[in-house]
Amino acid sequence: MAQMAKILAINSGSSTLKWKLFQMPEEQVIASGMVDRLGLSDSVFTVKYGDSQKFSQTGDIKTPEIAVDLLLKKLIELKIIEDYAEIQGVGHRIVAGGEIFDRSVLVDEKALANIESLAEYAPLHNPAEADGIRAFSKLLPNVPEVAVFDTSFHTTMPPMNYLYSIKREYYDKFGARKYGAHGTSNRYVSGRAAEMLGKDLSDLNLVVMHLGSGVSVTAIKNGKSYDTSMGFTPLAGVTMSTRSGDIDASLVAFLMQKLNITDPEAMVQILNEESGLLALSELSPDMRDLENSRDTQPDSQLAIDIFANRIIKYVAGYIAELGGVDALIFTAGIGEGDKVMRKRIVDGLSVFGAKIDDDRNDVMGQEQRISSDDSKVDVLLIPTNEELMIARDVMTLSNQH
Amino acid sequence: MAQMAKILAINSGSSTLKWKLFQMPEEQVIASGMVDRLGLSDSVFTVKYGDSQKFSQTGDIKTPEIAVDLLLKKLIELKIIEDYAEIQGVGHRIVAGGEIFDRSVLVDEKALANIESLAEYAPLHNPAEADGIRAFSKLLPNVPEVAVFDTSFHTTMPPMNYLYSIKREYYDKFGARKYGAHGTSNRYVSGRAAEMLGKDLSDLNLVVMHLGSGVSVTAIKNGKSYDTSMGFTPLAGVTMSTRSGDIDASLVAFLMQKLNITDPEAMVQILNEESGLLALSELSPDMRDLENSRDTQPDSQLAIDIFANRIIKYVAGYIAELGGVDALIFTAGIGEGDKVMRKRIVDGLSVFGAKIDDDRNDVMGQEQRISSDDSKVDVLLIPTNEELMIARDVMTLSNQH
Repeated sequence: MAQMAKILAINSGSSTLKWKLFQMPEEQVIASGMVDRLGLSDSVFTVKYGDSQKFSQTGDIKTPEIAVDLLLKKLIELKIIEDYAEIQGVGHRIVAGGEIFDRSVLVDEKALANIESLAEYAPLHNPAEADGIRAFSKLLPNVPEVAVFDTSFHTTMPPMNYLYSIKREYYDKFGARKYGAHGTSNRYVSGRAAEMLGKDLSDLNLVVMHLGSGVSVTAIKNGKSYDTSMGFTPLAGVTMSTRSGDIDASLVAFLMQKLNITDPEAMVQILNEESGLLALSELSPDMRDLENSRDTQPDSQLAIDIFANRIIKYVAGYIAELGGVDALIFTAGIGEGDKVMRKRIVDGLSVFGAKIDDDRNDVMGQEQRISSDDSKVDVLLIPTNEELMIARDVMTLSNQH
Repeated sequence: MAQMAKILAINSGSSTLKWKLFQMPEEQVIASGMVDRLGLSDSVFTVKYGDSQKFSQTGDIKTPEIAVDLLLKKLIELKIIEDYAEIQGVGHRIVAGGEIFDRSVLVDEKALANIESLAEYAPLHNPAEADGIRAFSKLLPNVPEVAVFDTSFHTTMPPMNYLYSIKREYYDKFGARKYGAHGTSNRYVSGRAAEMLGKDLSDLNLVVMHLGSGVSVTAIKNGKSYDTSMGFTPLAGVTMSTRSGDIDASLVAFLMQKLNITDPEAMVQILNEESGLLALSELSPDMRDLENSRDTQPDSQLAIDIFANRIIKYVAGYIAELGGVDALIFTAGIGEGDKVMRKRIVDGLSVFGAKIDDDRNDVMGQEQRISSDDSKVDVLLIPTNEELMIARDVMTLSNQH
């Protein structure tokens, strides 16, 4: 059975449900799609499948269960599958796994309760993800469901790097520590890096730059996460599309007073949603818009400079604490698509002997070594594939099932 | 007159007034002392002078003016000076200079008003410092007074490094940016480094580690501040005695909710006064206590590890953004006194070819190159002397007077 399995990889947000259907073990995407405005009015349901075929419909989809029911029926109607029995497993991306989940797990009632208990670390995500799991388990009661956590990969960080310099009781009682994010992406690209370099992952020190609308830098020591720029939440670290990254914590109090904001969560929301590249450029959260306007808009150039410089400093700090690095990895939207930014960052790491090869770097979204032959550090472009990683975890765990 | 001037260097805090009396241009300390519990009951007034002589008295000192009056009278009584006319100038350390003061200035009414207008950036310090200036100008009306700012040295930072990735209006309207601190210390030690290395300061890239109860790391490019770890306030950056340094800003909101704290300033106060080494070790804010207990107290060792590691990462980031560094500088209490910590940090920077020489490093509080001959980076121990820098600024500006 597992030889010809179809696996669904699900990414549930507060008002979205994205999915990809894989043919395994071929790792081929048969169909993908999303439900947008889930729980709101005029929800949009889309499917991409077959030979560039698309289906979409608009209409209220009020609950995850209705969304999942619609999705499964359309898979039949559009002849993507013939029978629900073809679906051998469903994998769910979960944002917060806390210290409970250090790896992906088959979901049972206890796991589901734990996922819900972690809601305070990801209030917009974990409850919606738990709802998605419940919807699938109702409609496909005999299909194994697997939870894959953004944070699991980072549970190998040492206390030196996950503890903040705050009262220990804040960690002991409230779990106030660094959890990081983008763990599934890091796991995927670090595995690919080992294959590209022809080495054991456990012998490699890597620094991964996941540069999407969320941006993280991760230090990987002997194949395991050792440090990462995102923190207690994905707000911390470098400048992102709409997130501030690191700021002086006293600014939270200062700005609340200046802006007459009484709810600290409202201030944090501004730092998450109205800051970063968008706030610096006063133009766009999208790096492509900034690149296109840099010659005429000084603030676009400044936002680009700040974005690059913050990353360079994190990478350098991580290379130092790793005591050297075998490879630097670029991934995610900007990392895969923006050769100018990649060159800029590698040039900013010249003190480590990193050198880009402009011809090799002249690519988008394909696996490629982009460093020159005389670079002292390999620099790799590796498109990430979190959904495939989820589908693989489903295969592994449902075979143990 | 200036040839044989005596200069007072003043450091006023919210309830303290520290002072040093210099014989200039010999740069010799004739006397020093402090008023503790100023404005409270049972104030303590102390003077050190001559050949290890000490004077102290306890009794209410309610205002800065009373403190200054007592100080001046005791200088006569203890025969440290014969006449007030010997005092050729008074220099005051000011914590916040904002964007107004990019250098030290002779204080006039306008400067004093500006110092007071910057109180919101240093609410505990600037008003007390302004009071100190007023007290001296009343009692020594014909003596020039000079303001020396902790922030001036950092006004050369480029916008890329002083801007946070938050809305531009927060900078434009409220001055929310990185100001840094320890500027006078950085100015002193960078000048000394140039002399020790026999080079022009303007040709040097340096990274200064000011490791006291407050800790900062500063990148100096061509002799000027280019980046620094402290931020809008001295809370940001690395782990300090009682300050948290960088944390995820969303923790402010999360912890306020958990701790039922409604005033964000109260949360920031905890981050400033009850965090850092003290919170991690649950033992002491003093590195010496942690070093002495590291073998028996795992949390002391952990606090030391976190302290060193945060510094190493900042230094590495700054070396990268400087594109290389001529010298690393250790200064202030821990930097001058703790050879184990110095070695630990330099070892942590081995990726840059930095190597410590254990014999040269076996010193406390004296100027010394502590790197080995084959180190690719010079590492210097330079005891700081902010008061001397203040006295020099007074000499320079009062001669222009």
